[in-house]
Amino acid sequence: MTDPSSSEPKCPDFSRGTDGLLPAIAQDADNGDVLMLAWMNAEAWQQTLRTGRATYYSRSRQALWCKGESSGHAQHIVDARVDCDADAILLRVRQVGAACHNGFRSCFYRTIDSDAKISENAQRLVDPKAVYGDPSS
Amino acid sequence: MTDPSSSEPKCPDFSRGTDGLLPAIAQDADNGDVLMLAWMNAEAWQQTLRTGRATYYSRSRQALWCKGESSGHAQHIVDARVDCDADAILLRVRQVGAACHNGFRSCFYRTIDSDAKISENAQRLVDPKAVYGDPSS
Repeated sequence: MTDPSSSEPKCPDFSRGTDGLLPAIAQDADNGDVLMLAWMNAEAWQQTLRTGRATYYSRSRQALWCKGESSGHAQHIVDARVDCDADAILLRVRQVGAACHNGFRSCFYRTIDSDAKISENAQRLVDPKAVYGDPSS
Repeated sequence: MTDPSSSEPKCPDFSRGTDGLLPAIAQDADNGDVLMLAWMNAEAWQQTLRTGRATYYSRSRQALWCKGESSGHAQHIVDARVDCDADAILLRVRQVGAACHNGFRSCFYRTIDSDAKISENAQRLVDPKAVYGDPSS
Protein backbone atom coordinates (compact mmCIF):
# COMPACT_ATOMS: atom_id res chain seq x y z
CA MET A 1 0.00 0.00 0.00
CA THR A 2 1.35 3.40 -0.89
CA ASP A 3 1.97 5.69 2.02
CA PRO A 4 0.37 8.98 0.93
CA SER A 5 2.98 10.90 2.94
CA SER A 6 5.94 9.16 1.25
CA SER A 7 6.08 11.72 -1.55
CA GLU A 8 6.38 14.57 0.94
CA PRO A 9 9.73 16.33 1.10
CA LYS A 10 12.22 15.81 3.91
CA CYS A 11 11.04 17.47 7.07
CA PRO A 12 12.58 20.01 7.41
CA ASP A 13 14.16 20.08 3.98
CA PHE A 14 17.26 22.26 4.32
CA SER A 15 18.01 21.93 0.61
CA ARG A 16 15.10 24.33 0.05
CA GLY A 17 16.81 27.21 1.85
CA THR A 18 19.36 29.67 0.50
CA ASP A 19 22.78 28.37 1.59
CA GLY A 20 20.98 25.49 3.36
CA LEU A 21 19.37 27.86 5.86
CA LEU A 22 15.68 27.90 6.80
CA PRO A 23 13.86 30.57 8.82
CA ALA A 24 12.97 29.49 12.37
CA ILE A 25 10.33 31.29 14.40
CA ALA A 26 10.53 31.19 18.20
CA GLN A 27 7.15 31.51 19.92
CA ASP A 28 6.49 31.85 23.65
CA ALA A 29 4.69 28.59 24.50
CA ASP A 30 2.96 30.21 27.46
CA ASN A 31 1.33 33.29 25.95
CA GLY A 32 1.74 32.78 22.18
CA ASP A 33 3.90 35.87 21.60
CA VAL A 34 6.21 35.61 18.61
CA LEU A 35 9.63 36.26 20.13
CA MET A 36 12.07 36.28 17.21
CA LEU A 37 13.00 34.89 13.83
CA ALA A 38 16.44 33.40 13.26
CA TRP A 39 18.04 30.89 10.88
CA MET A 40 18.87 27.23 11.15
CA ASN A 41 20.98 24.82 9.16
CA ALA A 42 20.72 21.04 9.52
CA GLU A 43 23.33 21.01 12.28
CA ALA A 44 21.53 23.71 14.32
CA TRP A 45 18.28 21.75 13.94
CA GLN A 46 19.88 18.49 15.08
CA GLN A 47 21.52 20.20 18.04
CA THR A 48 18.20 21.81 19.00
CA LEU A 49 16.40 18.44 18.99
CA ARG A 50 19.24 16.74 20.85
CA THR A 51 19.75 19.33 23.59
CA GLY A 52 16.25 20.79 23.99
CA ARG A 53 17.82 24.28 23.72
CA ALA A 54 17.16 26.50 20.69
CA THR A 55 20.31 26.65 18.59
CA TYR A 56 20.51 28.78 15.46
CA TYR A 57 23.03 29.58 12.75
CA SER A 58 24.39 33.12 12.90
CA ARG A 59 24.71 34.44 9.35
CA SER A 60 26.96 37.31 10.48
CA ARG A 61 29.32 35.13 12.53
CA GLN A 62 28.87 32.07 10.28
CA ALA A 63 28.69 29.79 13.28
CA LEU A 64 26.19 27.88 15.40
CA TRP A 65 24.70 29.97 18.16
CA CYS A 66 23.04 28.41 21.18
CA LYS A 67 20.56 31.09 22.26
CA GLY A 68 21.41 32.40 25.73
CA GLU A 69 24.93 30.96 25.77
CA SER A 70 26.43 34.32 26.70
CA SER A 71 23.35 36.26 27.90
CA GLY A 72 21.72 33.47 29.89
CA HIS A 73 18.51 34.22 28.00
CA ALA A 74 17.99 30.65 26.83
CA GLN A 75 15.06 29.14 24.98
CA HIS A 76 13.94 25.72 26.23
CA ILE A 77 12.04 23.76 23.59
CA VAL A 78 8.44 22.79 24.32
CA ASP A 79 7.87 21.47 20.81
CA ALA A 80 9.21 21.92 17.29
CA ARG A 81 6.98 22.19 14.24
CA VAL A 82 7.58 22.29 10.49
CA ASP A 83 5.37 23.86 7.86
CA CYS A 84 3.58 22.21 4.92
CA ASP A 85 6.43 22.91 2.49
CA ALA A 86 9.04 21.75 5.03
CA ASP A 87 10.93 25.00 4.56
CA ALA A 88 10.04 26.93 7.72
CA ILE A 89 10.39 25.95 11.37
CA LEU A 90 8.36 26.94 14.42
CA LEU A 91 9.85 26.43 17.88
CA ARG A 92 7.50 26.77 20.83
CA VAL A 93 9.76 27.68 23.74
CA ARG A 94 10.05 28.71 27.36
CA GLN A 95 12.02 31.96 27.12
CA VAL A 96 14.35 32.95 29.94
CA GLY A 97 14.53 36.76 30.18
CA ALA A 98 14.47 38.74 26.94
CA ALA A 99 14.69 37.21 23.46
CA CYS A 100 15.82 40.51 21.91
CA HIS A 101 19.38 41.82 22.09
CA ASN A 102 17.86 45.28 22.56
CA GLY A 103 16.40 44.14 25.87
CA PHE A 104 12.78 43.63 24.83
CA ARG A 105 10.99 40.37 25.53
CA SER A 106 10.19 40.03 21.80
CA CYS A 107 12.25 41.28 18.85
CA PHE A 108 8.96 42.45 17.26
CA TYR A 109 8.55 45.45 19.57
CA ARG A 110 7.90 47.92 16.75
CA THR A 111 4.51 48.36 15.11
CA ILE A 112 4.21 50.05 11.72
CA ASP A 113 0.91 51.70 10.89
CA SER A 114 -0.60 52.17 7.43
CA ASP A 115 1.25 55.50 7.08
CA ALA A 116 4.55 53.70 7.83
CA LYS A 117 4.75 55.44 11.23
CA ILE A 118 6.72 53.40 13.79
CA SER A 119 5.72 53.02 17.44
CA GLU A 120 6.88 50.71 20.21
CA ASN A 121 4.34 48.16 21.45
CA ALA A 122 6.28 46.98 24.53
CA GLN A 123 8.45 48.13 27.41
CA ARG A 124 12.12 47.23 27.57
CA LEU A 125 12.54 44.30 29.95
CA VAL A 126 16.26 44.45 30.66
CA ASP A 127 19.15 46.85 30.04
CA PRO A 128 21.07 45.34 27.10
CA LYS A 129 24.32 46.90 28.40
CA ALA A 130 23.93 44.89 31.61
CA VAL A 131 23.49 41.69 29.59
CA TYR A 132 25.84 42.13 26.65
CA GLY A 133 28.18 44.84 27.95
CA ASP A 134 28.54 48.40 26.68
CA PRO A 135 29.67 48.27 23.03
CA SER A 136 31.25 51.75 23.42
CA SER A 137 33.49 50.73 26.31
CA MET B 1 19.36 66.97 19.68
CA THR B 2 20.26 63.66 18.14
CA ASP B 3 17.38 61.26 17.69
CA PRO B 4 18.68 57.95 19.08
CA SER B 5 16.57 56.05 16.55
CA SER B 6 18.03 57.92 13.55
CA SER B 7 20.88 55.45 13.18
CA GLU B 8 18.46 52.52 12.98
CA PRO B 9 18.10 50.84 9.60
CA LYS B 10 15.11 51.34 7.34
CA CYS B 11 12.09 49.57 8.72
CA PRO B 12 11.70 47.05 7.18
CA ASP B 13 15.00 47.10 5.32
CA PHE B 14 14.47 44.98 2.22
CA SER B 15 18.11 45.43 1.19
CA ARG B 16 18.95 42.98 4.00
CA GLY B 17 17.07 40.09 2.37
CA THR B 18 18.29 37.73 -0.34
CA ASP B 19 16.89 39.08 -3.63
CA GLY B 20 15.22 41.86 -1.63
CA LEU B 21 12.89 39.40 0.11
CA LEU B 22 12.23 39.26 3.86
CA PRO B 23 10.42 36.50 5.77
CA ALA B 24 6.94 37.48 6.95
CA ILE B 25 5.15 35.56 9.69
CA ALA B 26 1.35 35.58 9.80
CA GLN B 27 -0.09 35.16 13.29
CA ASP B 28 -3.75 34.74 14.22
CA ALA B 29 -4.52 37.94 16.16
CA ASP B 30 -7.32 36.22 18.08
CA ASN B 31 -5.61 33.13 19.52
CA GLY B 32 -1.90 33.74 18.82
CA ASP B 33 -1.42 30.71 16.56
CA VAL B 34 1.37 31.09 14.03
CA LEU B 35 -0.40 30.47 10.73
CA MET B 36 2.34 30.56 8.08
CA LEU B 37 5.59 32.05 6.91
CA ALA B 38 5.86 33.62 3.47
CA TRP B 39 8.06 36.22 1.75
CA MET B 40 7.65 39.90 1.02
CA ASN B 41 9.42 42.39 -1.17
CA ALA B 42 9.01 46.15 -0.79
CA GLU B 43 6.06 46.18 -3.19
CA ALA B 44 4.22 43.41 -1.29
CA TRP B 45 4.80 45.30 1.96
CA GLN B 46 3.46 48.57 0.51
CA GLN B 47 0.43 46.82 -0.93
CA THR B 48 -0.24 45.11 2.42
CA LEU B 49 -0.16 48.44 4.29
CA ARG B 50 -2.26 50.16 1.64
CA THR B 51 -4.98 47.52 1.29
CA GLY B 52 -5.06 45.98 4.77
CA ARG B 53 -4.85 42.55 3.09
CA ALA B 54 -1.74 40.37 3.48
CA THR B 55 0.12 40.33 0.18
CA TYR B 56 3.27 38.27 -0.31
CA TYR B 57 5.78 37.60 -3.05
CA SER B 58 5.60 34.09 -4.47
CA ARG B 59 9.15 32.87 -5.09
CA SER B 60 7.91 30.02 -7.31
CA ARG B 61 5.64 32.21 -9.46
CA GLN B 62 7.86 35.31 -9.12
CA ALA B 63 4.82 37.51 -8.66
CA LEU B 64 2.87 39.31 -5.96
CA TRP B 65 0.28 37.12 -4.31
CA CYS B 66 -2.63 38.59 -2.38
CA LYS B 67 -3.46 35.81 0.10
CA GLY B 68 -6.96 34.47 -0.51
CA GLU B 69 -7.30 35.97 -3.99
CA SER B 70 -8.27 32.61 -5.49
CA SER B 71 -9.20 30.58 -2.36
CA GLY B 72 -11.12 33.29 -0.52
CA HIS B 73 -8.97 32.53 2.52
CA ALA B 74 -7.83 36.10 3.03
CA GLN B 75 -5.79 37.59 5.84
CA HIS B 76 -7.02 40.94 7.11
CA ILE B 77 -4.29 42.92 8.86
CA VAL B 78 -4.77 43.82 12.53
CA ASP B 79 -1.26 45.20 12.86
CA ALA B 80 2.16 44.85 11.25
CA ARG B 81 5.39 44.60 13.22
CA VAL B 82 9.07 44.60 12.33
CA ASP B 83 11.90 43.04 14.31
CA CYS B 84 14.92 44.72 15.90
CA ASP B 85 17.14 44.15 12.86
CA ALA B 86 14.39 45.31 10.49
CA ASP B 87 14.78 42.11 8.49
CA ALA B 88 11.74 40.08 9.58
CA ILE B 89 8.05 40.98 9.53
CA LEU B 90 5.19 39.87 11.76
CA LEU B 91 1.62 40.34 10.55
CA ARG B 92 -1.13 39.89 13.12
CA VAL B 93 -4.18 38.95 11.07
CA ARG B 94 -7.79 37.86 11.02
CA GLN B 95 -7.64 34.67 8.97
CA VAL B 96 -10.60 33.65 6.83
CA GLY B 97 -10.78 29.84 6.60
CA ALA B 98 -7.51 27.95 6.36
CA ALA B 99 -4.08 29.55 5.92
CA CYS B 100 -2.56 26.32 4.60
CA HIS B 101 -2.99 25.08 1.03
CA ASN B 102 -3.27 21.57 2.50
CA GLY B 103 -6.49 22.61 4.23
CA PHE B 104 -5.18 23.07 7.77
CA ARG B 105 -5.82 26.28 9.69
CA SER B 106 -2.03 26.68 10.20
CA CYS B 107 0.78 25.53 7.91
CA PHE B 108 2.64 24.33 11.03
CA TYR B 109 0.44 21.26 11.55
CA ARG B 110 3.36 18.84 11.92
CA THR B 111 5.24 18.37 15.18
CA ILE B 112 8.69 16.76 15.17
CA ASP B 113 9.81 15.07 18.37
CA SER B 114 13.38 14.65 19.59
CA ASP B 115 13.64 11.37 17.63
CA ALA B 116 12.61 13.22 14.45
CA LYS B 117 9.25 11.41 14.47
CA ILE B 118 6.51 13.42 12.75
CA SER B 119 2.94 13.70 14.04
CA GLU B 120 0.02 15.96 13.14
CA ASN B 121 -1.06 18.44 15.82
CA ALA B 122 -4.30 19.59 14.14
CA GLN B 123 -7.32 18.43 12.18
CA ARG B 124 -7.78 19.40 8.54
CA LEU B 125 -10.26 22.28 8.38
CA VAL B 126 -11.23 22.20 4.71
CA ASP B 127 -10.79 19.87 1.75
CA PRO B 128 -8.05 21.47 -0.37
CA LYS B 129 -9.58 19.97 -3.54
CA ALA B 130 -12.78 21.90 -2.84
CA VAL B 131 -10.80 25.13 -2.49
CA TYR B 132 -8.05 24.81 -5.09
CA GLY B 133 -9.49 22.11 -7.37
CA ASP B 134 -8.20 18.59 -7.94
CA PRO B 135 -4.66 18.78 -9.34
CA SER B 136 -5.13 15.34 -11.00
CA SER B 137 -8.20 16.41 -12.96
